[in-house]
Amino acid sequence: MDKEATAVGRSFPRIDALEKATGRAKYGIDLEMEGMLHAKLLRSTRAHARVTRIDASGALRLPGVRAVATIEEVPKVVQYWFFLRSEKKEKEMVLLDNIVRFVGDPVLAVAAEDEETAEEAVTRVRVSYEPLEAVFDPLEALQGAGIPIHSKGNVAFRVEKQFGDTRKGFEEADLILENHYQTSKQKHAPLEPIGTCLADFRPDGRLTVHSSTQLPHWSRMYMAKAMDLPMHRVRIIKPFTGGAFGGRCGLIHGLEMMTSWLSRKTGRPVRMSFSRREEFLATESRHPMAINIKTGVKRDGRLTANEIRILADVGAYGTHYIGVLADCLSTGLGLYDIPNVDFQASAVFTNTAPCGAFRGYGNPQMNFAQESQLDMIAQKLGIDPVELRRRNYLPAGRTDPVFNDEIRSNGLEECLDEGARVFGWKGKTEGKEGRGALKRGRGMAVMLHGTGAAGALPDPASATVMIHADGTVSLMTAAADEGQGNRTALAQVASEVLGIEMEKIGLSETDTAVTPLDGGTHGSRQAYCGGHAVKMASEKARARLLEYAAGELETPPERLLIRESRIHDAQNPEKGITVADLMRKVQIADMSVCEQIVETFSGVAPAMPGYYGADFAEVEVDTETGEVRVLRLTGAFDVGRAINPGFVKGQITGGGVMGIGWALSEGLIVEKGRILNAGLTDYLIPGAQDIPRMDALIVESHEPTGPFGAKGIGEGSMVCVASAVANAVADAVGVRIRDLPITAEKILSALRDPGLR
Amino acid sequence: MDKEATAVGRSFPRIDALEKATGRAKYGIDLEMEGMLHAKLLRSTRAHARVTRIDASGALRLPGVRAVATIEEVPKVVQYWFFLRSEKKEKEMVLLDNIVRFVGDPVLAVAAEDEETAEEAVTRVRVSYEPLEAVFDPLEALQGAGIPIHSKGNVAFRVEKQFGDTRKGFEEADLILENHYQTSKQKHAPLEPIGTCLADFRPDGRLTVHSSTQLPHWSRMYMAKAMDLPMHRVRIIKPFTGGAFGGRCGLIHGLEMMTSWLSRKTGRPVRMSFSRREEFLATESRHPMAINIKTGVKRDGRLTANEIRILADVGAYGTHYIGVLADCLSTGLGLYDIPNVDFQASAVFTNTAPCGAFRGYGNPQMNFAQESQLDMIAQKLGIDPVELRRRNYLPAGRTDPVFNDEIRSNGLEECLDEGARVFGWKGKTEGKEGRGALKRGRGMAVMLHGTGAAGALPDPASATVMIHADGTVSLMTAAADEGQGNRTALAQVASEVLGIEMEKIGLSETDTAVTPLDGGTHGSRQAYCGGHAVKMASEKARARLLEYAAGELETPPERLLIRESRIHDAQNPEKGITVADLMRKVQIADMSVCEQIVETFSGVAPAMPGYYGADFAEVEVDTETGEVRVLRLTGAFDVGRAINPGFVKGQITGGGVMGIGWALSEGLIVEKGRILNAGLTDYLIPGAQDIPRMDALIVESHEPTGPFGAKGIGEGSMVCVASAVANAVADAVGVRIRDLPITAEKILSALRDPGLR
Repeated sequence: MDKEATAVGRSFPRIDALEKATGRAKYGIDLEMEGMLHAKLLRSTRAHARVTRIDASGALRLPGVRAVATIEEVPKVVQYWFFLRSEKKEKEMVLLDNIVRFVGDPVLAVAAEDEETAEEAVTRVRVSYEPLEAVFDPLEALQGAGIPIHSKGNVAFRVEKQFGDTRKGFEEADLILENHYQTSKQKHAPLEPIGTCLADFRPDGRLTVHSSTQLPHWSRMYMAKAMDLPMHRVRIIKPFTGGAFGGRCGLIHGLEMMTSWLSRKTGRPVRMSFSRREEFLATESRHPMAINIKTGVKRDGRLTANEIRILADVGAYGTHYIGVLADCLSTGLGLYDIPNVDFQASAVFTNTAPCGAFRGYGNPQMNFAQESQLDMIAQKLGIDPVELRRRNYLPAGRTDPVFNDEIRSNGLEECLDEGARVFGWKGKTEGKEGRGALKRGRGMAVMLHGTGAAGALPDPASATVMIHADGTVSLMTAAADEGQGNRTALAQVASEVLGIEMEKIGLSETDTAVTPLDGGTHGSRQAYCGGHAVKMASEKARARLLEYAAGELETPPERLLIRESRIHDAQNPEKGITVADLMRKVQIADMSVCEQIVETFSGVAPAMPGYYGADFAEVEVDTETGEVRVLRLTGAFDVGRAINPGFVKGQITGGGVMGIGWALSEGLIVEKGRILNAGLTDYLIPGAQDIPRMDALIVESHEPTGPFGAKGIGEGSMVCVASAVANAVADAVGVRIRDLPITAEKILSALRDPGLR
Repeated sequence: MDKEATAVGRSFPRIDALEKATGRAKYGIDLEMEGMLHAKLLRSTRAHARVTRIDASGALRLPGVRAVATIEEVPKVVQYWFFLRSEKKEKEMVLLDNIVRFVGDPVLAVAAEDEETAEEAVTRVRVSYEPLEAVFDPLEALQGAGIPIHSKGNVAFRVEKQFGDTRKGFEEADLILENHYQTSKQKHAPLEPIGTCLADFRPDGRLTVHSSTQLPHWSRMYMAKAMDLPMHRVRIIKPFTGGAFGGRCGLIHGLEMMTSWLSRKTGRPVRMSFSRREEFLATESRHPMAINIKTGVKRDGRLTANEIRILADVGAYGTHYIGVLADCLSTGLGLYDIPNVDFQASAVFTNTAPCGAFRGYGNPQMNFAQESQLDMIAQKLGIDPVELRRRNYLPAGRTDPVFNDEIRSNGLEECLDEGARVFGWKGKTEGKEGRGALKRGRGMAVMLHGTGAAGALPDPASATVMIHADGTVSLMTAAADEGQGNRTALAQVASEVLGIEMEKIGLSETDTAVTPLDGGTHGSRQAYCGGHAVKMASEKARARLLEYAAGELETPPERLLIRESRIHDAQNPEKGITVADLMRKVQIADMSVCEQIVETFSGVAPAMPGYYGADFAEVEVDTETGEVRVLRLTGAFDVGRAINPGFVKGQITGGGVMGIGWALSEGLIVEKGRILNAGLTDYLIPGAQDIPRMDALIVESHEPTGPFGAKGIGEGSMVCVASAVANAVADAVGVRIRDLPITAEKILSALRDPGLR
């Protein structure tokens, strides 16, 4: 089937393109419901305090105000779906107390007839705080400063993992390099701000939440748990969503819970929408990490040892820190064949805005440190950086050290080849150009990222295929599409398996009431995990089609093929029946049958294969201003198989741009828990003028466990961009910035301080 | 399982009761959508004419008018789902021309920004008609009068069926009785007027129609066919519905098609709502029938022959006349063991408002004639009417003459026993009472009706059962609930099979996009056909539950029971696991599984069992005014098994009231194609003061092919009411009215004309 694929491997436009292009698509902010109330949050002005009294009487007296919900009554969800696995663990998910833990932490929500009234009402609430000692610096938090932010203390999580013997590894090394790296608190900043939902609590106890979540099914479980409702009465419907990148990978702090609570109190639908400023002040961001890394290497470039120490800042609440640290470990260690590794990482709470899932999930931080190390090693040993990776990467056939599973596909070498060829990589020392103060440099870096989370986390994927009487198909999937097109790719998988053309495949809404359990869109998992489920369900449906056709055509099913919606005998192509005619017969004409083919697959994908990539960057640094411009970025990624090459290229390009932002400008500036650059005016994401010439290159290694060989791409596309840019900057101006973002100030100050060279 | 049933056989309240009682339930008229336009129809003032010119310029000039759609562009659907079975037959379903065929036939629809503008716009359209000769009388239509209404002529359908030899049968008879009966053009007149929909045609070619149809899936196919759209792009969503009774058993003439057409033209959602007057003028009604029946009987009451001639008036269009005449045949012949039958029936088109499906579907008409005959025979032979039925009915174990299938259950004898006992039946000749001009009388009648249409029509039923991680369940079904509670009954079936309590079972919406193929709510079929599908799907889900539990408990699955959501070893009840714990494990905790149990059944029910009933009526006739009051109505019905006895009693009661209306007052008055009593002021349905003392008695014969023994009830409850009332009237005053409704005028005129006695 694969060789003559008709749907897989083709760049179909997004199934929802017309809806979006014509403006008919409804995003969170467009949602309206008859009788809807509007909610606003009152947010803490304190970084750490106990709320001792809330006087909402002034607000409640305001005409149009219908209800308030307070911190004391509305639980928070403070863990992720890994904790749903037992009744005991589940208890750790929900937190209810009267403590505010960061500036912006919700204290109360008001529901009113209109948004203005709700805003006004919030200003009329008086809150009395009992101040608690706050801690903002993760190192201080680790050392026990401040009043513990959570009952278990300020250390949220700690992981230690040793492989081999690093002492021995460093002894064997010809060169040992130790450096300290720091990464920034990056915001997802999607096109559509994070923080809109509409909750409708019905008199019979049914709760429907329209939420732009990446995890409709897990969100349903969170809501059911925190609201104490049975799951069959909780429904999450996802509207069109303008980007997520991990920022919607769970409930939004204070959003769905407060809104649903107000809906239950008032018996009316309630919508809440954060402003862009609120999004920046109080929704999750990337974990800033301090990473110390000591690397040992032989003269020939073979790595002998790595000692890694990570301190991650979780902020005041954090749902994903366990996974994020685990990802630092697995992606960092799985990339290279290093016999001796000592990995120790801690995540600590601070009284700052919470951190959570973000494209790459700890990997970009770890990658920045490790790939900077390798770049320095290459320079010091006089080995081409590409060659250095070739000598050290863990190829297919070997075993992943962390997950202890076979690497079944690894196209990193082809990524290096193809990326270097297209980029025109000639080694770093050659070809340096520039005019006057403008210095050019080249750098590269590689990455590994896991596809999905099979075996590491609960990771279900499901799909239902319904074939209609006219031979068209509905595919039911809860896969959340944030704009990347994954649902279109899933339709392509169904089309390919069924032999039914793309225009005949329709998709359900992303609605937990109608779609079977899916683990959500995160971990670069939908093409692989969702694709696997769709493929399995489609194969079951196809088998049923062939079974009926076999009876009709009096031909054994194994001899039948489906092409362009026609089932025919492979040995006698004239002998056939269209799917439409067959289905009409089965569903309508044969009154003894009347069956619609409906097949579901639900389960976990067979593996968590790594996908690989290499980025090559060329930069120009103005040594007078310190400004860095990326002139070119070439990304080559082994995605196993590109179900929809256009979407894969979109990911590579988008991830490239996001990586440039993280490399050069992005990061919240926090002073004593107050965010100084809350909004897109002061927090700079790359604009059109910052986007370089880009090459998005697809390498296909064909993952044997993947649907048609597919793995992932979503996150990996941004993982090693900053590393490549930092390496290029070092190449251009000879100073290495180990503290992201690489701002002009840091460049200038480094240029002035030869110690940094 | 059955003996200790916990969910089946209990009168649970409707699952949607709270939604309705609190006013949150949305009916058709409540539907709104952003940017929605309002549509109004311009209806023909002619009974039969060719539309030669439509000048809508005046309407289109009116500010706020957005589009018109005309008779010349919008197809009509003029057949029912039996015609979907081949591409050739399907062509007969759709009609597109410029002929109006009855007063009220839609000529054009206008879409405007508000309802008032649409109404005003309609008045500004000029239509030129070329008159065509009309025919209003079915006998004239049969004889070829008028210009043929449809291309195939005025005879829509004819059926002839002979069993045995009627000549011989009449020779053997000791008594031969021949009479002519006439029935009225009854309106469904549900609480919620018929004729509201909202259509939303999207730029990508997807059409969603919110329609109160009884047949969501067939309506989808009709719309797809008539609008030339693939089925996966057509979605029917059913809002809450205030009664149907067959009146929504297909597309509503001029409603969904015109509205969808306007939505496609304007790119905006469009809603159309008929007024009650429009409903009466131009939606379907019960087929008026002229029935001539000649019955031969032996002195001992054994029937020897029946010769039946029926002429049914289809009106100008008719989708269901084939089925309706077939039902006259099968219900009339299946009830009694008559060796010699000659059945001939014709349905003809006339230039009157269309007729269609209506509770009973031809059976009440046939029943009225046949049961009046039996009453006269009983009187003439001096046999008690109950005894006469006992001697003639076709019992279980015999073969249905029309469908040639075994009668597996027949509780008619128990219905007679129980009905007579509760009613206090003492034979007709005794106990006649009355004061002065008020005469009292008693009558009874029996009926058979088919459950569903397996084998006679395409009759699919499907259901999907999803079990959630907390052990609660979602049941996906397209079963249309018109208020009778059938969806609650289906949930009871799932609850019973799964051993999971009712409060843990949730129901999907009635939405073709999310539910598998279902033949709709008609033919008294949902408890039986829908129940069968739900039972099968639930059994599959239960087997999966037990399979997982068997592994967990190390006990063979066949030894496991589920009670109150706990699975336990029948031999050791201590050994068990809750469904919630098991599902949590399977879906979340065991990361190698992560499967949600989702099981679907789709297919046809095993049979079309007959269900039986007897009505006993006591009336009081005012011989001075001719007025008839029903004092008491006792209905005893063999429903196989009452899944929800409360709902069954609701049907028996509601059917009883509707039957009284048909017996005494209901019927459109049509003069030269013009309806004179269009609305509830002039068309009288029974009011609270008309409702007698009623007994709703349930007999359970346990149908072996039915879910937990269930058959149907919905239609049958009204089938023999008018027969019983007419027989009681004859008993009271000695005159027999053979022309429904039994109005005061007819009584008085009959009392004056001794020939009618």
